Amino acid sequence: MTELDAVFHALADPTRRAVVNRLIDGAAAVKQLSAPFEMGLPAFLKHLAVLETSGLIRSEKRGRVRTCHLNADRLATAEDWLVEQRVLWQGRADRLAAFVESQNPREHTS
Amino acid sequence: MTELDAVFHALADPTRRAVVNRLIDGAAAVKQLSAPFEMGLPAFLKHLAVLETSGLIRSEKRGRVRTCHLNADRLATAEDWLVEQRVLWQGRADRLAAFVESQNPREHTS
Repeated sequence: MTELDAVFHALADPTRRAVVNRLIDGAAAVKQLSAPFEMGLPAFLKHLAVLETSGLIRSEKRGRVRTCHLNADRLATAEDWLVEQRVLWQGRADRLAAFVESQNPREHTS
Repeated sequence: MTELDAVFHALADPTRRAVVNRLIDGAAAVKQLSAPFEMGLPAFLKHLAVLETSGLIRSEKRGRVRTCHLNADRLATAEDWLVEQRVLWQGRADRLAAFVESQNPREHTS
């Protein structure tokens, strides 16, 4: 599984996206993070494990409290790929438009 | 499954990302699309089905040939979400930097 596979997979779930969004406000303990979600802790911990495997979050344990942090660089990996596709797509659209224009030259008013 | 779930899920695979990237160059028949991949047609068709479910591609059949097209708008859905997170993240980083600065005012040389 490549880094991109893991990041896109991690983002393909509303709970995991909500956790990413929450961690933008700052690090949080697992208990805080899980509070808004109506699911059992084991299910929630599985979502955190998917996020951590993807590198989107990291966590550390002090005593009995595990705290999660966002790794925003990993979001950039996914954004960069999408931007690359968009730029290619726009380039093709521009070339198509130029071609159509060259086949149907319009009169320019001066 | 929301639209974002489906789009991120579809992008979480190298074959499916390669198909998206290929379709930027223009529509292509399934046979053309599958040629670069060392996998059986049934496996490849499953990947196309995931892409089509997500709305990233659409296809149409004429006679015995099924042609696939990219729906670039759907890529934008994913990019928009990532951009939103990045903007929030940068906003927080800027506020943190301003706070740190306010606590440790430096002498400005003039």
